[in-house]
Amino acid sequence: MVGHTNGAASCKVVLAGTVAKDLLAEVSQGFSKVGKAPLLIGFLANKDPAARKYAEWTDRTCQENGFKFELREVDREELESSILAANEDPDIDGIIVYYPIFGNRQDQYLQQCTDVSKDVEGLSHRYIFKLYHNERFLDEQMTQKSLLPCTPLALLKILDYLRVYNSILPYGNRLFGRSITVFNRSETVGRPLAALLANDGACVYSVDVTGVQEFTRGAGIKKNRHEVIEKEGWGMQDCVPLSDVVIGGVPGESFKIPTELLREGAVCINFSTEKNFEADVKDKASIYVPAIGKVTIVVLLRNLLRLVQNRQARTQEQA
Amino acid sequence: MVGHTNGAASCKVVLAGTVAKDLLAEVSQGFSKVGKAPLLIGFLANKDPAARKYAEWTDRTCQENGFKFELREVDREELESSILAANEDPDIDGIIVYYPIFGNRQDQYLQQCTDVSKDVEGLSHRYIFKLYHNERFLDEQMTQKSLLPCTPLALLKILDYLRVYNSILPYGNRLFGRSITVFNRSETVGRPLAALLANDGACVYSVDVTGVQEFTRGAGIKKNRHEVIEKEGWGMQDCVPLSDVVIGGVPGESFKIPTELLREGAVCINFSTEKNFEADVKDKASIYVPAIGKVTIVVLLRNLLRLVQNRQARTQEQA
Repeated sequence: MVGHTNGAASCKVVLAGTVAKDLLAEVSQGFSKVGKAPLLIGFLANKDPAARKYAEWTDRTCQENGFKFELREVDREELESSILAANEDPDIDGIIVYYPIFGNRQDQYLQQCTDVSKDVEGLSHRYIFKLYHNERFLDEQMTQKSLLPCTPLALLKILDYLRVYNSILPYGNRLFGRSITVFNRSETVGRPLAALLANDGACVYSVDVTGVQEFTRGAGIKKNRHEVIEKEGWGMQDCVPLSDVVIGGVPGESFKIPTELLREGAVCINFSTEKNFEADVKDKASIYVPAIGKVTIVVLLRNLLRLVQNRQARTQEQA
Repeated sequence: MVGHTNGAASCKVVLAGTVAKDLLAEVSQGFSKVGKAPLLIGFLANKDPAARKYAEWTDRTCQENGFKFELREVDREELESSILAANEDPDIDGIIVYYPIFGNRQDQYLQQCTDVSKDVEGLSHRYIFKLYHNERFLDEQMTQKSLLPCTPLALLKILDYLRVYNSILPYGNRLFGRSITVFNRSETVGRPLAALLANDGACVYSVDVTGVQEFTRGAGIKKNRHEVIEKEGWGMQDCVPLSDVVIGGVPGESFKIPTELLREGAVCINFSTEKNFEADVKDKASIYVPAIGKVTIVVLLRNLLRLVQNRQARTQEQA
């Protein structure tokens, strides 16, 4: 007999479907109050199987929950004019484009073509600017809330569900004391996510191939919004062991976060289509979330609800 | 102008009264179900002003909430026979002795004189043994729950209120991933507290003048109860910076936990009658609890409730 008898791993696996279910009930209740089944248009202009799958998931979630969704397959050269037409169509409440289209900077141009008032993805510059500046409303009267991009917002909702957000702390500071490493610093997910987490009070280590950056609101989170410090010479071996939460979003099969670097009882969340954590992550994590897709779809609908609510707020102001 | 504009400290100060209020409502509801106003007897046999104050607080809390409390002042030489008489009196539901009496090992002897079924302080060897072995019931049928000593239990209730216990995790593992330093390793508070926290999944650093010990349930909290490892050569400078929660219970005015050692956003709780944290603790902590006395009193009543419930469970079994 060797030493101690060991029991089963104590890791709680949380599936996105569980989080999505709670959130969907909240969104459905919101829609029942606005009194109209909103119409969401999806544009598919590529042959990417992941994009098609995402479109199909959106379709199914909408059908199952009484939202109207219409998928429009267009040639990529016609996409811009199709978006502009949808912007003008008063029957359409929200627009989503399934990227990549050209797979280069032209895609960022296309992102800005969707009218701000119909951008369910929350990728319009106006929304992103508000996000980085930790401003939560679009107007001074604070009747219209700004939108957040879907994947970062899905991760926030998951962290809230997991009680990483501490509800005993004041709203806006509920991540104070948490250290979070985010693998991915893309403009659509990783960088806005790091900023959102730091704006809510966390100490965030943002890791990509170029190195590690620290996002915080400074000592005692006394600043109103985050600041970024380059951690010269740091790698994942420096920040992962310090982190209560580790979030992986690196595409590519070969990338793995070594379990041995994790803090005992870390919360581990994977949002990459690949598995960013090693198979034995459950031997060390307290909570493991293997994928987030189902939450992202619901968050899309939540953004759609917010667009409809914002439109109603504007109408009421004008009336 | 120097660099950035700083705002106010973001620390949330949580007063024991706030936690006590919630807990008292729970206890009162419990008593309304057992259908009898229980009688608690307090024995005061010293001239210690802190002991008298604790007795007065107990009296006031009982009076305000409809519990019967009777303070019996006795000579210390008569205390043992007074306790034994109270053990035999069927009208008495709970007994508390305000220590110190002799201030030496005789006090531990006296602690064991109170009948287990009337020991509201939870200091009987039977309860303490269960605590260290992470066994939560007194009987195999699991109808009678074991009692926990008041001050450690008060700290657990505070940590639960502060959401340091993560309710998303399974009961018994809700501190998995938390690192907690406890200053004090006394037999009545610090050591049982460290064991309780580790049994619930935390990594606990127990600090006293002799050094640092680590209490955990091992890698992946796979063991059923905690084990203790001596951290050779460690001091507070090694464990405080790693800790999400720092708990101070050191008597003596000169002892201070340096703020500079604290992790940004640490949860800091003081249960000493002295201030164990420096005045600027609020510049760094996310939550600061300056004292816990009011919670301890309510926990005493909660233990009294449990004694009454356990007696009812025994009566039902015999019937």
